[in-house]
Amino acid sequence: MEEIEKLLRAYRGNEIDTNEAARRIRDLHYEDIGYARVDHARATRQGFPEVVFGAGKTRAQVVGIVERLVQRAPNVLVTHTDEDTFGEVRNVVTEAEWHAAARVIRVQRDRTELGVGEIAVVTAGTSDIPVAEEAALTAETMGNRVVRVWDVGVAGIHRVLAERSLLQRSRVVIVAAGMEGALPSVVGGLVSVPVVAIPTSIGYGASFGGVAALLGMLNSCSSNVTVVNIDNGFGAGFVASLINRRWQSVASA
Amino acid sequence: MEEIEKLLRAYRGNEIDTNEAARRIRDLHYEDIGYARVDHARATRQGFPEVVFGAGKTRAQVVGIVERLVQRAPNVLVTHTDEDTFGEVRNVVTEAEWHAAARVIRVQRDRTELGVGEIAVVTAGTSDIPVAEEAALTAETMGNRVVRVWDVGVAGIHRVLAERSLLQRSRVVIVAAGMEGALPSVVGGLVSVPVVAIPTSIGYGASFGGVAALLGMLNSCSSNVTVVNIDNGFGAGFVASLINRRWQSVASA
Amino acid sequence: MEEIEKLLRAYRGNEIDTNEAARRIRDLHYEDIGYARVDHARATRQGFPEVVFGAGKTRAQVVGIVERLVQRAPNVLVTHTDEDTFGEVRNVVTEAEWHAAARVIRVQRDRTELGVGEIAVVTAGTSDIPVAEEAALTAETMGNRVVRVWDVGVAGIHRVLAERSLLQRSRVVIVAAGMEGALPSVVGGLVSVPVVAIPTSIGYGASFGGVAALLGMLNSCSSNVTVVNIDNGFGAGFVASLINRRWQSVASA
Amino acid sequence: MEEIEKLLRAYRGNEIDTNEAARRIRDLHYEDIGYARVDHARATRQGFPEVVFGAGKTRAQVVGIVERLVQRAPNVLVTHTDEDTFGEVRNVVTEAEWHAAARVIRVQRDRTELGVGEIAVVTAGTSDIPVAEEAALTAETMGNRVVRVWDVGVAGIHRVLAERSLLQRSRVVIVAAGMEGALPSVVGGLVSVPVVAIPTSIGYGASFGGVAALLGMLNSCSSNVTVVNIDNGFGAGFVASLINRRWQSVASA
Amino acid sequence: MEEIEKLLRAYRGNEIDTNEAARRIRDLHYEDIGYARVDHARATRQGFPEVVFGAGKTRAQVVGIVERLVQRAPNVLVTHTDEDTFGEVRNVVTEAEWHAAARVIRVQRDRTELGVGEIAVVTAGTSDIPVAEEAALTAETMGNRVVRVWDVGVAGIHRVLAERSLLQRSRVVIVAAGMEGALPSVVGGLVSVPVVAIPTSIGYGASFGGVAALLGMLNSCSSNVTVVNIDNGFGAGFVASLINRRWQSVASA
Amino acid sequence: MEEIEKLLRAYRGNEIDTNEAARRIRDLHYEDIGYARVDHARATRQGFPEVVFGAGKTRAQVVGIVERLVQRAPNVLVTHTDEDTFGEVRNVVTEAEWHAAARVIRVQRDRTELGVGEIAVVTAGTSDIPVAEEAALTAETMGNRVVRVWDVGVAGIHRVLAERSLLQRSRVVIVAAGMEGALPSVVGGLVSVPVVAIPTSIGYGASFGGVAALLGMLNSCSSNVTVVNIDNGFGAGFVASLINRRWQSVASA
Amino acid sequence: MEEIEKLLRAYRGNEIDTNEAARRIRDLHYEDIGYARVDHARATRQGFPEVVFGAGKTRAQVVGIVERLVQRAPNVLVTHTDEDTFGEVRNVVTEAEWHAAARVIRVQRDRTELGVGEIAVVTAGTSDIPVAEEAALTAETMGNRVVRVWDVGVAGIHRVLAERSLLQRSRVVIVAAGMEGALPSVVGGLVSVPVVAIPTSIGYGASFGGVAALLGMLNSCSSNVTVVNIDNGFGAGFVASLINRRWQSVASA
Amino acid sequence: MEEIEKLLRAYRGNEIDTNEAARRIRDLHYEDIGYARVDHARATRQGFPEVVFGAGKTRAQVVGIVERLVQRAPNVLVTHTDEDTFGEVRNVVTEAEWHAAARVIRVQRDRTELGVGEIAVVTAGTSDIPVAEEAALTAETMGNRVVRVWDVGVAGIHRVLAERSLLQRSRVVIVAAGMEGALPSVVGGLVSVPVVAIPTSIGYGASFGGVAALLGMLNSCSSNVTVVNIDNGFGAGFVASLINRRWQSVASA
Repeated sequence: MEEIEKLLRAYRGNEIDTNEAARRIRDLHYEDIGYARVDHARATRQGFPEVVFGAGKTRAQVVGIVERLVQRAPNVLVTHTDEDTFGEVRNVVTEAEWHAAARVIRVQRDRTELGVGEIAVVTAGTSDIPVAEEAALTAETMGNRVVRVWDVGVAGIHRVLAERSLLQRSRVVIVAAGMEGALPSVVGGLVSVPVVAIPTSIGYGASFGGVAALLGMLNSCSSNVTVVNIDNGFGAGFVASLINRRWQSVASA
Repeated sequence: MEEIEKLLRAYRGNEIDTNEAARRIRDLHYEDIGYARVDHARATRQGFPEVVFGAGKTRAQVVGIVERLVQRAPNVLVTHTDEDTFGEVRNVVTEAEWHAAARVIRVQRDRTELGVGEIAVVTAGTSDIPVAEEAALTAETMGNRVVRVWDVGVAGIHRVLAERSLLQRSRVVIVAAGMEGALPSVVGGLVSVPVVAIPTSIGYGASFGGVAALLGMLNSCSSNVTVVNIDNGFGAGFVASLINRRWQSVASA
Repeated sequence: MEEIEKLLRAYRGNEIDTNEAARRIRDLHYEDIGYARVDHARATRQGFPEVVFGAGKTRAQVVGIVERLVQRAPNVLVTHTDEDTFGEVRNVVTEAEWHAAARVIRVQRDRTELGVGEIAVVTAGTSDIPVAEEAALTAETMGNRVVRVWDVGVAGIHRVLAERSLLQRSRVVIVAAGMEGALPSVVGGLVSVPVVAIPTSIGYGASFGGVAALLGMLNSCSSNVTVVNIDNGFGAGFVASLINRRWQSVASA
Repeated sequence: MEEIEKLLRAYRGNEIDTNEAARRIRDLHYEDIGYARVDHARATRQGFPEVVFGAGKTRAQVVGIVERLVQRAPNVLVTHTDEDTFGEVRNVVTEAEWHAAARVIRVQRDRTELGVGEIAVVTAGTSDIPVAEEAALTAETMGNRVVRVWDVGVAGIHRVLAERSLLQRSRVVIVAAGMEGALPSVVGGLVSVPVVAIPTSIGYGASFGGVAALLGMLNSCSSNVTVVNIDNGFGAGFVASLINRRWQSVASA
Repeated sequence: MEEIEKLLRAYRGNEIDTNEAARRIRDLHYEDIGYARVDHARATRQGFPEVVFGAGKTRAQVVGIVERLVQRAPNVLVTHTDEDTFGEVRNVVTEAEWHAAARVIRVQRDRTELGVGEIAVVTAGTSDIPVAEEAALTAETMGNRVVRVWDVGVAGIHRVLAERSLLQRSRVVIVAAGMEGALPSVVGGLVSVPVVAIPTSIGYGASFGGVAALLGMLNSCSSNVTVVNIDNGFGAGFVASLINRRWQSVASA
Repeated sequence: MEEIEKLLRAYRGNEIDTNEAARRIRDLHYEDIGYARVDHARATRQGFPEVVFGAGKTRAQVVGIVERLVQRAPNVLVTHTDEDTFGEVRNVVTEAEWHAAARVIRVQRDRTELGVGEIAVVTAGTSDIPVAEEAALTAETMGNRVVRVWDVGVAGIHRVLAERSLLQRSRVVIVAAGMEGALPSVVGGLVSVPVVAIPTSIGYGASFGGVAALLGMLNSCSSNVTVVNIDNGFGAGFVASLINRRWQSVASA
Repeated sequence: MEEIEKLLRAYRGNEIDTNEAARRIRDLHYEDIGYARVDHARATRQGFPEVVFGAGKTRAQVVGIVERLVQRAPNVLVTHTDEDTFGEVRNVVTEAEWHAAARVIRVQRDRTELGVGEIAVVTAGTSDIPVAEEAALTAETMGNRVVRVWDVGVAGIHRVLAERSLLQRSRVVIVAAGMEGALPSVVGGLVSVPVVAIPTSIGYGASFGGVAALLGMLNSCSSNVTVVNIDNGFGAGFVASLINRRWQSVASA
Repeated sequence: MEEIEKLLRAYRGNEIDTNEAARRIRDLHYEDIGYARVDHARATRQGFPEVVFGAGKTRAQVVGIVERLVQRAPNVLVTHTDEDTFGEVRNVVTEAEWHAAARVIRVQRDRTELGVGEIAVVTAGTSDIPVAEEAALTAETMGNRVVRVWDVGVAGIHRVLAERSLLQRSRVVIVAAGMEGALPSVVGGLVSVPVVAIPTSIGYGASFGGVAALLGMLNSCSSNVTVVNIDNGFGAGFVASLINRRWQSVASA
């Protein structure tokens, strides 16, 4: 935070006038590139550079934003994107990787481990894997060890019970489930750590694109369950990473 | 079914004319008492006398309908009613019993056992008991042995697992659950018989008066689960009784 | 799979008793193939091998899961799939059949009859046939005799009345209807057996993709009606098969 | 319509100036009493004086509006009101009658018969009678012969079939039904005249205060069914009266 | 109705046995062609041959049903269909016409005028014309004179006021409107005949595919408005034709 | 704004230290009274002191907040409150007035006229008056001339047309309507100024507590209509006042 | 308005008969071109020529309507359209411009400045720009100076705070936001002028196509916020222009 | 409870090893008291004894469950209850405290501090305090230091900015907000720790009992926000406590 302090001292010392001070402070915060204000200060405020939500942006806009972000941040994620966009991103950022199942572009240049424990990422079914994979990638990119547990839905309760010890040694558990979305409640009852539940849009008919799962999770009778938006793998991975972060590093952020 | 056959023979033999035949056939079917057409033929068609849905009827109407039903049927149920109505019903039908938790009036004069196996009635929580009790009473009144299993919701999965053998020896299982309504899926995965799921209106906020539980049950990943209306204990008990009936008695109905 | 052999030898050698052997076998449960935990124990628990819900899985995943299932189970179903997936499945499982109307892949090597009576499958309209056909195929694959009754919706009530005797001799009736979904109530009033109602997504405007039919069925004034998810032909066929199963075989499952 | 013609001639003949003409024309239309503009021209435009919707108005407002209406119109209805309001209305309009079931105040001083045929008013259950009675009273007040047919819901299809000839000789049929709202479709299939369907709020759980019945009726597979708002007995009776009116009287209105 | 009477007399005279009588009566009602029960009796019951709802049926099914209908009925409609289906229908029924805007196939061989007055069909905007045209075609095919009034929505109230006299001389008015669906209320206030309102799916955002218009119409403050399903031009045209039919012909139907 | 400038100069001149400066700046903004942060700066920022939303606050909390507000602001409003709360408020603020229809407590000590033109407040029906009155009171308290036009709903279109010139000379029009909420569209088509539409919860059945009116207004085909929350008379009056304010006073705020 | 007065005097002087007078008055109002009634009087009534909503109209219809409008109005907008339609419009109106981001065709021949102050158009994110651009173009076409402020969503609150002075000097602020739609509340708290909020359909899962943002804005705790339909950039730009218009020009319109 | 004693003696006698003893103790699980299965093992599994959800339980049931819980757990909470129930609870548990605002009964005999940092509990308005207070009490009872920040909603953004440093030094932030529910997004953007958002049912009209706030929070553009059910203060406090727990104690739980 020294940069800000230097700035303020210069201002009080009348080295720079008010306008100049305001402009520089604003520059620390974000960079205006016309169609976007790239938020370089987010790492400071939230512990991770801005993720780029790819949907609804033109390919050129995604590339432009990524270009700015990689100049200041070692790790960058683009979610809800496609392989063609990845192609263009890789032209300017050669370290970019394409993760097909999760539909995520990742740049990971800093692999420091930041977590205190392990994060378990669990799915009810095979069809929930893409969303769960987005969560797992996010958590890994943010410096966590991740364990994947796929297809342990409640209709065969012995499958999740078989993973009980794995779940119980995690610092936080992410559970992705569509249809009735019951798995987070069962997992929540098995562990003594926070469970971040992701409703997925898997299902048909009265699943209403994930609404049934969402409502199920919001009404969970397990008190350690919180919920993110339908299919929001990134959000779940992000929060789980914050929960798992060593408090020291959080406190000094 | 002899009565109908006698009638038809008399008609073909010209003993009675068409109008008379029509009137008598109609009498077999139901009795018009002005505000209601009491359906005496329902036992023939569905295996049980008409249940009286108490809500939205005046007290006098409930009493009037019950009076007619008990003249031809040994067992009668009134649901969604109150203790004052019970008081008036008992004035005319002294065998009537009041079941406070389920808010049900019952007349049970025939206690023949009709089921092939046992019916288990299960609740996720203590607050689901009234609805489940309505189901249990209905099944008992229809000639079934019933086992009650209260408060085994999924947040403490060991509770339902502890009752596994009881559930597995039942011919059909009824499960009442509010909030996220996940219990039928778990029970459905444990047994090889039909599960009739009752969403209850227990919960608050995004439970939307039972809608969350209803959607969860409709989207159950256990294939042996079917669903009735929110809080419809009677319907679940009724269908479970039909499933459990000895096929012989069903076939000849 | 040596584990099972060891177990069985220990059992034959009287090293462990029957109870212990049963417990251990049940623990063998499922096979983890990475993206799925194939649930071989489901036949034991539910009376039928796991059905594969095709939507949201890659073609390779469907083929992989089917390959495992057919090694242990004589009959397998894949629902919500397409003809190209069928082509790949047939490459590895030559007995696989493609049912175009229902969009179902079926492997049926065991045709033992398991039902106590007949299952009637009824539609309100011509457009409901695909969903009803999925139900009928499921019931047949599970060892039942099935009678199909197409296009007898309530706007021409004489059509369903004409089939009354057929319906009344069935052990269970499945009714598929879209639009206002009124047919299950009428059928329910005509028979004394359980009616499994399937709302279909047929309709437009305020049918909301089957929601109108779903609500109609949940509020049915016929007490013998239970409901499955919109377009869930498989579920209805599955439950109807369990209802129709000889109790002996159920009890010993 | 002579009054308007006289006015216009007077205006063209310069007997009255523009302002005066405008004021008088407006007076023909409605009377402004502060909190309401009493619409005396509605009889001309719609064939019946303004009905007073009682809910949300103070008792004094209802009385005030009725006072103005009865000065020019022989027949007046107040719906969604209560007995105490009736007491105050009767103080100023002694012919007012209280209809408890329908919660309607009626003034009927003109009993000329205006309909070409009979209007049948039908309910699915006993609990639907209050809404149906509001429709029947409205139709009677508007000069129609009305036949009431209570409690012929589809779960006992023989009950409505028994009334087939009565229904088929009507000029229009009103059907009130709650729960799944299936009766209008069945009645619609039996008759060759318009069916006006009223969803009622009778039911619980997933009936959602009449929404299930409303959706069912909007999706009716019988093409002669149109729908009014939930519990809108007045509207149904009003439209049925217009349908039944002798065309001569309609054309000259 | 003589055919039925002859049949019954033959039966009582023992000329034909019960089975034969039943079969013949059923044949009068409908013809079972496997995937559909073509309802020849609907003309008797409802005053018009069965319309074919094209959506969700295969092309061959549509052609097959039309082939049967045209053998007994002079006029036939297919709605929700496409030009390719029309091509195949015309191969077997040369009189078939294609109405592109309404997406309707029509066979009209009987052009007898059956209405007592005129039917006005009105739209709020240009985009509502296809639905309104479906209504107009239906009414014309059922023997009515129709007047079309396009694009008179309430944002320019003078446009509908300019057509007041045309509307007021109609026997029934059909109004199609999307977005806020306010036009039926305004038209309803101008005329003294029934208004059949069709919500259309025209709009975006919070129009929710016609739901906003549907709710607006159901809550209309004009008492002469009834409502059909979203985009249901056929239903509106059908009901309007029944309202407009000479009572003599209705009564003897 | 001088107070802030003085503060800043004192800070730069080291007369006060950073903590002191921060505290004083915060004091200018709001006053923390434990359960509330009374926002004295809102007049600066928004042109009117904070309104107190009475619902969900204890009586003591309302009184406490009003006490603080009246110390710095001449005019204060409390909405969604009751007469007993008014009693207690009047004990401490004797100028407080009770407006029963609108359920509003008002303190108006400054009656300067601030508007450029007139604000018309219009209702569709008598039952919409309480909400409209809340809007009118708000606008008057904020220094505007208000004209009230009650009960001119679209079912009698001549009523609103009769007020056309009054509406057309207003600077902004507020329209409150329940049921189908069509009036704002009609008014919007008549005037060339902004229309602020308030959906009211007046209605029943499918009005869903004002949702039908809300959707109708959001989908208005008149482009000059914007919408506030259901029953939000205050909000509409507030925005209308801002629209009507002389730009000079706005610009210097 | 002289044209109307001349007409009326000619009528009273019997120079023209009633029919002729009526036809001419109607011509002043709108031009009937079959599929549309082009509303030339809207400029008089609302201050801007009719905008053409392109969706649901054929290309030929759009061109036809634009042709009529440009004969009497200098400026015309077509929204919700596509580039091919633009091609055909430009064939007949060479000044037409294509605005790709907003999907708007514009003819702007009159560039008189009509506004009293500046209009700020603000977005929460990059993906909201197309909707906001539609609003900005509309406001510019209606004679206003517009300032664009993109990508200042609440997750980085410093971004919008940095634009505070720009916002505070505007006469009205338009805010477009998807997802949770929180930005209008924050902006509303910063300024003392009306805020017109546009919910956009940007988001996924529980954003429900803009419903979450819509509800957020309707419930805004900032009293100066009003709302238009989801993605309705045109409406927001239109209303903002009316708010910003010099009162003189409004009053004389 | 002899079983535990036997178990412990066996353990001391080295008849069973530590692992085996632990497994068996865990199997002791819960106590069946008829209407409830009191879950004594929850502390082990989840780190806190079962909370009692008071709604839907009889007073006697609440007292009975609390009696059992306090025998084994030092701290117990009853939520959604009332003062009369508290009276009866205090008769048997004298340490019980009544927290009126939160409607919570608390027994807190163990006050060990278990958290690693501070938990901030924040409300948007005064009316959100009861829900927030439930969260704060829960967190305190679970051994955390809590800081309360009331009434800092986004309409006066400076209020929350003023508390920035307090928020930034917390280990986790709970935010309760009704109406548009925007505060968690703003807070989320200011801090680098997890934000647990509680939608409250405060609001009216289109807030739909908290749904607007719920949707807003689920769609938050701040990635560190997760959501619990509407008004679920307990759940938020519970999860925040788990997040804040020293990992050591979590890991060994």
